[in-house]
Amino acid sequence: MSSNSFGKVFKLTTFGESHGKAIGGIIEGCPPNLTLDLDFINNEIARRKPSNAFWATPRNEEDVVIWLSGLSNTTTNGAPIAFMIENQNIKKQDYINLSSAYRPSHGDFTWESKYNTPPTTGGGRLSARETLARVVAGAIAKQWLLKNGINITAWTHSIGSISILDSNPIDTNNIGSNALFCPDQQTVPLMEELLRGLVEKGDSTGGIVRCTIEGLPVGLGEPLFDKTEALLGHAMLSIPAVKGFEIGSGFEGTKMAGSYHNDPFIIKDQKITTLTNHSGGVLGGITNGSNIDFKVAFKPVSTIKLPQNTVDRNGIETTLEASGRHDACVVPRAVVIVEAMAALVIADLMLRQKLIQQ
Amino acid sequence: MSSNSFGKVFKLTTFGESHGKAIGGIIEGCPPNLTLDLDFINNEIARRKPSNAFWATPRNEEDVVIWLSGLSNTTTNGAPIAFMIENQNIKKQDYINLSSAYRPSHGDFTWESKYNTPPTTGGGRLSARETLARVVAGAIAKQWLLKNGINITAWTHSIGSISILDSNPIDTNNIGSNALFCPDQQTVPLMEELLRGLVEKGDSTGGIVRCTIEGLPVGLGEPLFDKTEALLGHAMLSIPAVKGFEIGSGFEGTKMAGSYHNDPFIIKDQKITTLTNHSGGVLGGITNGSNIDFKVAFKPVSTIKLPQNTVDRNGIETTLEASGRHDACVVPRAVVIVEAMAALVIADLMLRQKLIQQ
Amino acid sequence: MSSNSFGKVFKLTTFGESHGKAIGGIIEGCPPNLTLDLDFINNEIARRKPSNAFWATPRNEEDVVIWLSGLSNTTTNGAPIAFMIENQNIKKQDYINLSSAYRPSHGDFTWESKYNTPPTTGGGRLSARETLARVVAGAIAKQWLLKNGINITAWTHSIGSISILDSNPIDTNNIGSNALFCPDQQTVPLMEELLRGLVEKGDSTGGIVRCTIEGLPVGLGEPLFDKTEALLGHAMLSIPAVKGFEIGSGFEGTKMAGSYHNDPFIIKDQKITTLTNHSGGVLGGITNGSNIDFKVAFKPVSTIKLPQNTVDRNGIETTLEASGRHDACVVPRAVVIVEAMAALVIADLMLRQKLIQQ
Amino acid sequence: MSSNSFGKVFKLTTFGESHGKAIGGIIEGCPPNLTLDLDFINNEIARRKPSNAFWATPRNEEDVVIWLSGLSNTTTNGAPIAFMIENQNIKKQDYINLSSAYRPSHGDFTWESKYNTPPTTGGGRLSARETLARVVAGAIAKQWLLKNGINITAWTHSIGSISILDSNPIDTNNIGSNALFCPDQQTVPLMEELLRGLVEKGDSTGGIVRCTIEGLPVGLGEPLFDKTEALLGHAMLSIPAVKGFEIGSGFEGTKMAGSYHNDPFIIKDQKITTLTNHSGGVLGGITNGSNIDFKVAFKPVSTIKLPQNTVDRNGIETTLEASGRHDACVVPRAVVIVEAMAALVIADLMLRQKLIQQ
Repeated sequence: MSSNSFGKVFKLTTFGESHGKAIGGIIEGCPPNLTLDLDFINNEIARRKPSNAFWATPRNEEDVVIWLSGLSNTTTNGAPIAFMIENQNIKKQDYINLSSAYRPSHGDFTWESKYNTPPTTGGGRLSARETLARVVAGAIAKQWLLKNGINITAWTHSIGSISILDSNPIDTNNIGSNALFCPDQQTVPLMEELLRGLVEKGDSTGGIVRCTIEGLPVGLGEPLFDKTEALLGHAMLSIPAVKGFEIGSGFEGTKMAGSYHNDPFIIKDQKITTLTNHSGGVLGGITNGSNIDFKVAFKPVSTIKLPQNTVDRNGIETTLEASGRHDACVVPRAVVIVEAMAALVIADLMLRQKLIQQ
Repeated sequence: MSSNSFGKVFKLTTFGESHGKAIGGIIEGCPPNLTLDLDFINNEIARRKPSNAFWATPRNEEDVVIWLSGLSNTTTNGAPIAFMIENQNIKKQDYINLSSAYRPSHGDFTWESKYNTPPTTGGGRLSARETLARVVAGAIAKQWLLKNGINITAWTHSIGSISILDSNPIDTNNIGSNALFCPDQQTVPLMEELLRGLVEKGDSTGGIVRCTIEGLPVGLGEPLFDKTEALLGHAMLSIPAVKGFEIGSGFEGTKMAGSYHNDPFIIKDQKITTLTNHSGGVLGGITNGSNIDFKVAFKPVSTIKLPQNTVDRNGIETTLEASGRHDACVVPRAVVIVEAMAALVIADLMLRQKLIQQ
Repeated sequence: MSSNSFGKVFKLTTFGESHGKAIGGIIEGCPPNLTLDLDFINNEIARRKPSNAFWATPRNEEDVVIWLSGLSNTTTNGAPIAFMIENQNIKKQDYINLSSAYRPSHGDFTWESKYNTPPTTGGGRLSARETLARVVAGAIAKQWLLKNGINITAWTHSIGSISILDSNPIDTNNIGSNALFCPDQQTVPLMEELLRGLVEKGDSTGGIVRCTIEGLPVGLGEPLFDKTEALLGHAMLSIPAVKGFEIGSGFEGTKMAGSYHNDPFIIKDQKITTLTNHSGGVLGGITNGSNIDFKVAFKPVSTIKLPQNTVDRNGIETTLEASGRHDACVVPRAVVIVEAMAALVIADLMLRQKLIQQ
Repeated sequence: MSSNSFGKVFKLTTFGESHGKAIGGIIEGCPPNLTLDLDFINNEIARRKPSNAFWATPRNEEDVVIWLSGLSNTTTNGAPIAFMIENQNIKKQDYINLSSAYRPSHGDFTWESKYNTPPTTGGGRLSARETLARVVAGAIAKQWLLKNGINITAWTHSIGSISILDSNPIDTNNIGSNALFCPDQQTVPLMEELLRGLVEKGDSTGGIVRCTIEGLPVGLGEPLFDKTEALLGHAMLSIPAVKGFEIGSGFEGTKMAGSYHNDPFIIKDQKITTLTNHSGGVLGGITNGSNIDFKVAFKPVSTIKLPQNTVDRNGIETTLEASGRHDACVVPRAVVIVEAMAALVIADLMLRQKLIQQ
């Protein structure tokens, strides 16, 4: 019972493999009469594929969204919104020889075992190219959220062991100033230096994306099991290469005393809010009106140039030497994907909350 | 659109509030003809409520499971399994005065705002008492998994800043030897010392539960969106007080080089496996046959004895002085809850995988 | 993958077997702050079990609803509403001998085959006693609908071949005037006469329930697949003994000419409505503001006193001679069940429609 | 909360409007390693659009399926199967003037009211053209069912008041011998005569499709709420123009005596079966191994040539005179749609039943 859908009301169902004809999806539950800014959507797609980045190797193809259903001109009309992006960078579906090796820490081995299917090139359904559909849907969700005063912003928090210091204030206006999508001007050169060394060696590393959500009403989140943080965690851990998620004080907060960690309620601008935000914007799984603040851990890129021990599809131990180029770190390109998945979660929760308003 | 259900095939739907008549649930999709060991279930309930623990204050009531449906004697018969545990430790549903204060970092404020409902005592639906239903359902899932060779084991990994060293080997046989459910004999006294100090001060702290799952087949997990780690993250982040989840190398792994982090495939006992397990048992969201290994971060207990600044239900700033006793740390009692939720996830994925087997 | 839930937003999940401890359910998605009239609910339960009906043999037990969760006093509070009715009329779970016979046209054979489970007494999960949970949930949905101006009324349209003539006007005020729940005073004696003959012979028959829904807004129903009539059909065909469903002109309408069948739009009271209502209140699966009007066909009661040929659980052909009493017709008792299921459908659609309102 | 999905395991999600770019869908849960016969699928599409039928006016376009995902060559590979059929017969999305009239008994009025959207040409999402996606998905389900020995056959049972007599034996081999898909050679000329008269007058009529399912195992169907007949009813009533559904003895059976209606169990070929089949293949909502037998009522085609009274989009009463051609009856073209929806239901239930097999 596969799962190609995300969301209960604002719901995305996706399709597509890396070397198939197209990647795409169907969006159900998007409110009607929303006029879309298609340039914004194209720009989000572009953010997923930074140009002029020495550490990245995006596929050399233009990703053009073809709208199949759900829009009258550019306005949502109540029908499901369907879209696709054709895969141009492929030859005929290649077949992989059984003597070819399983790529370590990739999903080929597990997918082929799960479905008892022969191997296909390019990662098939598990290729990171599937995230294109998430970005398109997220870009639609974002536009509706923005109309409701909600803004989602993610950035590169760390690459390898190079991290923005917690003491540094974040100016989110700077995020777009560099291809790393890192707002801290002092940290960017250090990250670039690290990446340059990895590229030279043919190696890779991981990193952390941080994300804030501003403008939230009190009341989003559906306990017991669809708490806001549970849905955000689910969403983030469904992104390729993600190994961890934390909200508010997260793992570090486990060391604190309750008397320090608790966020005192205060009155500000005649509304109830909290003095601190160790909770990261959620109490009992429900938004409390403060900003949501979370982090997502991405593992090092699995494709590297260095030779690796592995096993081939006949079960023979062998050595894999990758050719071609690869990304030294996936984090900068993941920034827009994290935002997209967060937008899907919040749009869904906003609509679900409408159901109990009188 | 509230969410009181978890799972798609092996599915738990729960009900109950802390000061209502009962806590309980309905389990759908449990395979028929499974003879349950009811003593095991009772023992799991007992693990959630450690006795002789100076740092904990379980409710003084016996939690007796009343089976309402789905069992012929003690064998599942295909009908949904319904059960309840009566709340004995309550007076008549108390009404909280509007002049009473919101408890910092609790969910009263957000729940009451979400539903526009008057306050009730004891945390209502958000009380940790709801986890009883999870433990009962998890204890059933565990028995079915064990018949299939799958074993789930969690323990206290850290309390506050006192943590089992990564260099220490874990002997899971020791977990039950102490009320902290910590397998490392050297760490236990340090944890107890920390907790003693917190109890004296009327303060609290957080900690980390670690969990492994052994005996898994290759192939569990349903990409794109129901990857194994995504469902585990969802499950764990739905537990009260959880602020973080990581699998395998997690946040620390983001700093590693890909050449180190990748898990080489090898042949062992004529099967494909991996030399290392930085992936934590999942590749592309699908189990690879290695053990799953994850950690869950719990925030410091919000109820403390120390006076705190807050706001009352009329929006007036005030000070809250809690009376009575409280847990200094929730982690030891959460060990069995983490196992229960993991069992629900894996049982569900085991059944979902049956759908594509030929 | 069993199905004990109905509805997507206003959602009922039920449990219970005829000879188990209790029948009950969990209702999610009921709007908060709805004050329930518990007497109304008890009265609906009573309608399912008409007294003084010579043709019926309700179980001799009082059906008392025990509320487990979701109400503060009698007002919904946002938590799931859980309830149960204990089965008092049972001895210890009886075991049926393998030499006992399968009852013709009952579900024992198929249930036992499906789940590979040993037989239990009383129909188990498939007993019509499960409809109690539907009636309780429906009685809650009805109260919320009534607050929104929507009224659901069902009645006995036919018993065997005795039917209210289409030319007779229906005065719904008369429905409660007799134990058959038939509003047509001329037809009641004929039905009673038919039933008297069947009781004497130990035989049974079927019949038709008709139902109207008044006060509907334009716009309910969720094409493509959750059209109003599709959900109503699903709901009705899930009731024990139902073999058919038709809305508006139904099967008879298939014979008409389009020029006669089409309902002309007109303006009335400054609103768009239709002159005729062959559509039965739905166009394209969406309510058009006219009354919904549908019929439900119930097969003859399967339990009869006459000897029947059948097969026992060892696969030996045998003869079954039922003892005890039975209902000669299920239709009058089904009237409230039809209403309850209709209420669940419409409450769910009302809430779903809130999601697209601006 | 719209509904463009059908099925829980074998699941179809569709998109597309009559005058949009394409109609299509995503199929999840289709078993992997199923090699599809694409010619069969194309032939099913052709059955939906009979040529040389004087009473029908299919759109003058070739319906070519473009496969977007989920197939390696023609074999299912575990990824979701996505497909589309481009709409060639359209100009640029036309806008309907507000002074244009609502078509009686069509869904324009209700859809536009529901979504508060401006009108579009061609019926938009509610156009019967959406059934193309059902036929494609059904044609895939059928192939998998056939591999499992299950065969689904529908035919035209009646057109207007011309019906195959119940006493006539059905030879399903004759179904394809005429454009009406009616197996009874004596009835076909009468139906043609009726249709000829309607075409001359510019009028239309309705009719009934009958369907049988052979080769079913005992045990399909998921009580309480997803009984086989409930899912079939849901499926059929979601098809445009359907007003009724009955299974087995249906409405006529309500008049029978239980002693006649009950199907005696017998032993045949060493298996338990029934002597008669008034139940239509289901007991307690679960298949009993006998053939499923059901009927679906289609209302008269709403588009007619005769002038009709109606109201325009400004709320002014007016007269509508349709131009162009139309189908005099939808029933023959609906035969393959009924089969397709039945196939989706049974494929889903077959997979769901796998979950409880040991």
